[in-house]
Amino acid sequence: MKKIINDPFKVVDEMIGGILKAYPQHLKPAQGSKRALVRADAPIKGKVAIVTGGGTGHIPVFLGYVGKGLCDGVSIGNVFSSPSAEDILAATRVANGGEGVFYLFGNYGGDIMNFDLAAEISEAEDIHIEKALVKDDIASAPPEEIDRRRAVAGLFFAYKITGAKAEEGATINEVKSIAEKVIFNTRSIGVALSPCIVPAVGNPTFTIGEDEMELGMGIHGEPGVERTKLKTANKIAEMMTMKIINDLPFQKGDEVAVLVNGLGATPPEELYILWNRTHDILVDRSIKVYKCYVGEYATSLEMAGCSISLLRLDESLKKLLDAPAYSPFLLQWK
Amino acid sequence: MKKIINDPFKVVDEMIGGILKAYPQHLKPAQGSKRALVRADAPIKGKVAIVTGGGTGHIPVFLGYVGKGLCDGVSIGNVFSSPSAEDILAATRVANGGEGVFYLFGNYGGDIMNFDLAAEISEAEDIHIEKALVKDDIASAPPEEIDRRRAVAGLFFAYKITGAKAEEGATINEVKSIAEKVIFNTRSIGVALSPCIVPAVGNPTFTIGEDEMELGMGIHGEPGVERTKLKTANKIAEMMTMKIINDLPFQKGDEVAVLVNGLGATPPEELYILWNRTHDILVDRSIKVYKCYVGEYATSLEMAGCSISLLRLDESLKKLLDAPAYSPFLLQWK
Repeated sequence: MKKIINDPFKVVDEMIGGILKAYPQHLKPAQGSKRALVRADAPIKGKVAIVTGGGTGHIPVFLGYVGKGLCDGVSIGNVFSSPSAEDILAATRVANGGEGVFYLFGNYGGDIMNFDLAAEISEAEDIHIEKALVKDDIASAPPEEIDRRRAVAGLFFAYKITGAKAEEGATINEVKSIAEKVIFNTRSIGVALSPCIVPAVGNPTFTIGEDEMELGMGIHGEPGVERTKLKTANKIAEMMTMKIINDLPFQKGDEVAVLVNGLGATPPEELYILWNRTHDILVDRSIKVYKCYVGEYATSLEMAGCSISLLRLDESLKKLLDAPAYSPFLLQWK
Repeated sequence: MKKIINDPFKVVDEMIGGILKAYPQHLKPAQGSKRALVRADAPIKGKVAIVTGGGTGHIPVFLGYVGKGLCDGVSIGNVFSSPSAEDILAATRVANGGEGVFYLFGNYGGDIMNFDLAAEISEAEDIHIEKALVKDDIASAPPEEIDRRRAVAGLFFAYKITGAKAEEGATINEVKSIAEKVIFNTRSIGVALSPCIVPAVGNPTFTIGEDEMELGMGIHGEPGVERTKLKTANKIAEMMTMKIINDLPFQKGDEVAVLVNGLGATPPEELYILWNRTHDILVDRSIKVYKCYVGEYATSLEMAGCSISLLRLDESLKKLLDAPAYSPFLLQWK
């Protein structure tokens, strides 16, 4: 295990320490927790607060999406593990601006359990909670079992759109409604070329041959739908894009935002080669690309691989996608 | 070699293809070259144009630093190879807004030769050229041979500061003077944990033991100053930061901007752990951190490792560092 760390069991706390020293104007710890952070200007009176959370190892997911036009608070679990209900509660209490708190997180069992428990206690404290679960990974369950699907890089679109809506001063029901809309219209799939190592474990999350790739693997190394010999970038783009297009389905005349996401070790140069072909596949099918994002938006430690996400847009989603947002994890010069 | 590519010899052209399809509002090809890009609004009349360039494999270096408040044009070489004089010239001609063109690039032999040749031809075409070479890597030569030092992640500060000055409407001599100032005040050092593979070569750039790291390695795998067993993040932070502090030297009362840069495969989580200790080392020495940047600002394909850069600030540099800038490689939501 070749990592720039100290004690494998202190990775999360030392990482949070570094983040707070990096962006003191932007983030602050939520009182009563070492594993919860909120915007430095929280609580924002009169605004619905968005609280998210999840395991460590996916930067900028989850804590990189806290900021103006994004989320208000985040609870931080161990590497690839759910945050505790106590930490979610701490973020909730400090983020709460009096208009309710919206929980926006990935569709994973541990997260659901802990967010639900935190919601129960929050309601008892007169903080109104609503929630939506991101489930964009089409490889994790068939369309007829969409509620079993996991969250992957589509979290990016969910945070951006929902965060913009809350920033506008929308009610919690309006925030929930736009969250459900963006989640419904987002589809992703990934491909993994190599595993990663959870520091406290010390072994790779899975094994894969030197000439193999796995289509549909999850961001924690959950099994995918097909293991094959490594294909060319063009073939990979075709496999991924066609599966996504057929799933919603995306149709001729649709306008989309695209995210070509690197999982960690895959260089941006390769992502642009993948996008070079993905773009043409969409254009050939008269699917209009409104905007595209290429880079690392949801990672899996040092895993090599990538994912493609498509969001079907309408005028209201386009407006929210274009609204200003700020996080030092993504925007360094504002 | 496990890469998401098609033909190893088409990596650069297909990458450029993808980039132009990703950001058509932002970048356009420079007429007469397939390996030169300029800002979509180039030439900007009455503004000194900044042209840079270098080998592929370091995104966001070099082409990610073209944009408002940054560079105006870039010429693109093969992986880890200098761009040709023709491509530099193409970028120069299209970027030229009548106030001269400033060449800002890394201190590497091939780049110097080709930029100098392009400068000669440009001058013959009545385009006035000035230049500055970035040489921030303290591991590449001792202080008394500072002109032999290579450029690494300190390029980031050079682009940001010099670009802001040109955007203000400064003359080419003022641009040159600020470039020399930022270059003089920037110091970097890197550590490599694993090599990378140049696609057209197919073999790792160097070999290193499973338990080893190399201090001072260059971003193309140039030999460093010390190969040791892998140390803890805190030890690595101490080795790197103390070497940098002693080199300028940075002193009590100095105000600095810091860049903690990932080389490719090293996750941001590890960079924040490194910063957690680096911050304390600076504070202990009464060196004030004005701003810090953590992330991938100068990469080396899928190499694992990181670098630390320090820029000593004064009021004029702080103002230029804070000026607005935009590149879709770094700023996605503006």
